[in-house]
Amino acid sequence: MPYLDNAATTPLCEAAKQTITKHLDTFGNPSSVHEFGRQSRVLIEDARERIAKCINADPSEIYFTSGGSEANTLALNKRRYSASSKFEHHSVVTDWPKISVTKDGFIKAHKLNNMLSEWWEIPFDVMSCMFVNNELGTIQPIKELSTIAHRYGILLHTDAVQATPYVHIDVKELGCDMLSASGHKFGAPKGVGFLYANSRSRIKPMIHGGKQESGMRPGTENVLGILSMASALEDTVEHMDERNEYVKSLRDSLLDKLLRIDGAHLNGTLENRTPGNINIRFDGVSGERLVSLCSLYGVYISAGSACSEGIPAPSHVLKAIGLSDEEALSSVRITLGHQNTEEDANVAAGIITALVRRIRAYHES
Amino acid sequence: MPYLDNAATTPLCEAAKQTITKHLDTFGNPSSVHEFGRQSRVLIEDARERIAKCINADPSEIYFTSGGSEANTLALNKRRYSASSKFEHHSVVTDWPKISVTKDGFIKAHKLNNMLSEWWEIPFDVMSCMFVNNELGTIQPIKELSTIAHRYGILLHTDAVQATPYVHIDVKELGCDMLSASGHKFGAPKGVGFLYANSRSRIKPMIHGGKQESGMRPGTENVLGILSMASALEDTVEHMDERNEYVKSLRDSLLDKLLRIDGAHLNGTLENRTPGNINIRFDGVSGERLVSLCSLYGVYISAGSACSEGIPAPSHVLKAIGLSDEEALSSVRITLGHQNTEEDANVAAGIITALVRRIRAYHES
Repeated sequence: MPYLDNAATTPLCEAAKQTITKHLDTFGNPSSVHEFGRQSRVLIEDARERIAKCINADPSEIYFTSGGSEANTLALNKRRYSASSKFEHHSVVTDWPKISVTKDGFIKAHKLNNMLSEWWEIPFDVMSCMFVNNELGTIQPIKELSTIAHRYGILLHTDAVQATPYVHIDVKELGCDMLSASGHKFGAPKGVGFLYANSRSRIKPMIHGGKQESGMRPGTENVLGILSMASALEDTVEHMDERNEYVKSLRDSLLDKLLRIDGAHLNGTLENRTPGNINIRFDGVSGERLVSLCSLYGVYISAGSACSEGIPAPSHVLKAIGLSDEEALSSVRITLGHQNTEEDANVAAGIITALVRRIRAYHES
Repeated sequence: MPYLDNAATTPLCEAAKQTITKHLDTFGNPSSVHEFGRQSRVLIEDARERIAKCINADPSEIYFTSGGSEANTLALNKRRYSASSKFEHHSVVTDWPKISVTKDGFIKAHKLNNMLSEWWEIPFDVMSCMFVNNELGTIQPIKELSTIAHRYGILLHTDAVQATPYVHIDVKELGCDMLSASGHKFGAPKGVGFLYANSRSRIKPMIHGGKQESGMRPGTENVLGILSMASALEDTVEHMDERNEYVKSLRDSLLDKLLRIDGAHLNGTLENRTPGNINIRFDGVSGERLVSLCSLYGVYISAGSACSEGIPAPSHVLKAIGLSDEEALSSVRITLGHQNTEEDANVAAGIITALVRRIRAYHES
């Protein structure tokens, strides 16, 4: 039963499972001053250091959250902010003008420069830009965008939820001021994530309560989540290159087979795209319907980003790259992960090919 | 090594551990429309039903959060609210006048009535009141307070974080409009909790993003946390009466021994108090120092509420019941749980007695 929806969520990696199993009895409250609490505190601070090291940050710049949406909201909380482009995540969108993206799925730095240069006084202090688009897998030029934002005195926040599993992140090299990540996209459990925020960012707490996370994120820490997220991120970074290569070869082989189907079109290009992402449309075939039928045959793919599912509107991301409503509604997202096998790719190719034919035959009859 | 700090946090119960272990591979994103996502969705909705049943609520009134502080903040988000009394948790305190509490540690309903009757126009719509005080374990008359709040057209929110492990909760009987709970206080992992909110409450989302939790709490659900919290709450409610009786007998036996120490005074009374709570002071002995020394000898207790630790100020709760700064600073909180044994209580009594003597001897020498 091929699970090819790794952009929606990933299975727990072995490292995360082992950490959880090992620490089921590590239950001290990290805020307690006694030895039992201190044990949890030491483990959490160790996890913070390990996570910081994975993205070349200082441990003091890492704030643990309940996931990506909370990290995004915390980054932008009580700030004047704007989403940079037309295909950002719902959690960061405001009414300010957003730059258009290319038909291949990229933000162009010069467009951002042009837009910012048009303001007499820029009405926001933070700009938010997805590192990797959640539907297309396209990797955005964060370093260039940071440079331009800083030129105009604006901070850059990047939602790296989809980037963390596939892209080596160095926040100093990128120059971004804030960066969000979500554990369950890279083998950690759901319900935990983190925000990187440098000292210039001056984030403001959203939850009221205790002094946890330097007062920026009150609430007793998700100890099991945080420890297993650190294990999962280390595992991810350590094996990234070999896994990317492997996943890319699977993806290319699957894509090759799918593109042989009549009226199949890849959305976006393969350049600067995460290795496991296929976003493809089949003329005259409803993406939602294809996803449902695939599920019946044990092939798990997605018709849009996980967050917008249930909403039958065409994807705003696909419309942003110039697709018509009909084209967007006939698209599916297939995202492979390192746990997938060659057989998964072959089975998926066979079933999708057969189902596309069957749906078309049904419409014609 | 007796862990007697169960109000700060509790060990995972067997039911929670088993649920986590069983579901390490239940990784579908509940928002995914395919079968894999649907499995997680079904499990989460089942957990919601089971939790709702435990407190006599409707499943649609349960919103999962990352814990108690987030639940409190969500309940009061974008609301005009006030904390009812002088010993509420930091997460709900505002500048409006708060009613005083009795020296035994209780809010009196008539005092609330008097305070509310003094306003020409009450400047808040929601009043927040702790169900069980986190330091004293005193159980507040939530039903009476709800009735009075409603008389003035105000909603009642109760922070039930410390009540859930020891008090049978029936939200319809209590009449409260909102109620917060935190999993790790009753045998579930840290990083998960819930808010009960009836339809009158009209809560407003704090985190931006997807449509999870009816749009009230965006972000991919903490599947392992939610499932294990449901197991832990069921286990708690099922065994509450017998455990309360057992914990009370341990507590009374330990308290009896501690009160034999010269200059020992119980803070508050034993009436309407959770069964495991002892809040006690020893004249001339620093609570912080006693806690630290106890920890060296493997007895884990607390000098204040877990959230305020690290802050050397006297407890605002103890000051609210009329203790002087010196009395408050010489107090410790000992909270027993059902996993504690008679030996734990005996060992703790012996070590605390010896350490109180030693600290005094040190001061005298």
